[in-house]
Amino acid sequence: MKPRISVLTLGVDDLEVALAFYRDGLGLATKGITGTQFEHGKVVFFDLQGGMKLALFARSDLARDAGISVTPRSASEFSLGQLVRSEAEVDAVMRQAIAAGARLVQSARKTFWGGYAGYFTDPDGHLWEVV
Amino acid sequence: MKPRISVLTLGVDDLEVALAFYRDGLGLATKGITGTQFEHGKVVFFDLQGGMKLALFARSDLARDAGISVTPRSASEFSLGQLVRSEAEVDAVMRQAIAAGARLVQSARKTFWGGYAGYFTDPDGHLWEVV
Repeated sequence: MKPRISVLTLGVDDLEVALAFYRDGLGLATKGITGTQFEHGKVVFFDLQGGMKLALFARSDLARDAGISVTPRSASEFSLGQLVRSEAEVDAVMRQAIAAGARLVQSARKTFWGGYAGYFTDPDGHLWEVV
Repeated sequence: MKPRISVLTLGVDDLEVALAFYRDGLGLATKGITGTQFEHGKVVFFDLQGGMKLALFARSDLARDAGISVTPRSASEFSLGQLVRSEAEVDAVMRQAIAAGARLVQSARKTFWGGYAGYFTDPDGHLWEVV
């Protein structure tokens, strides 16, 4: 297997709400909702650095596609980490996220390993760490 | 916020088991467990293409770091998608994952949007799609 994640797909409760958070709130570029020609295929893609895509997909459609059950939110499943250049930039991204409707989970602070980081969750409870 | 995920951290039940799956089973390169000098800081990093890292971190340590509760497994939270070049390569990666101890969730098959993809879960129930 190649050391590659091409697409990270987040299961979301409401595609419009998640789209608004990431596009309008965090400023990520997207063509909006695509796949509308498919009954269970509506999806949103954002191009990230390094050739990777972030996708938003209804939890129910993700579960259907994989053939699994829809399961409840679980914030300790994973976190998405974004490294930035300075403590001031951590603070700025945290402020932007909160203003966009993120939930503040851990205010930015010195970490045990000598860094500076804060945590927020997106409207679907997915955990982000800004470092 | 920059369109960037620097580190994707997976919460795992057993760091050694997850390390063995990704390193020995899937062949991803790593220096192994680092951060052992910290009581709750043991972590494994894999360098992925595009400058991103995949990290393995005990769920309990992730929860402690973020100041949240440990929550149960939830496969519909997200999926990690890897695009490969051919149907044969999809089959090969699926076989490799199953041989490494992954659980087969959806055998590779034609998708509704015209692709070819299969799903497996890692030892912690995290969903991967090979496309």
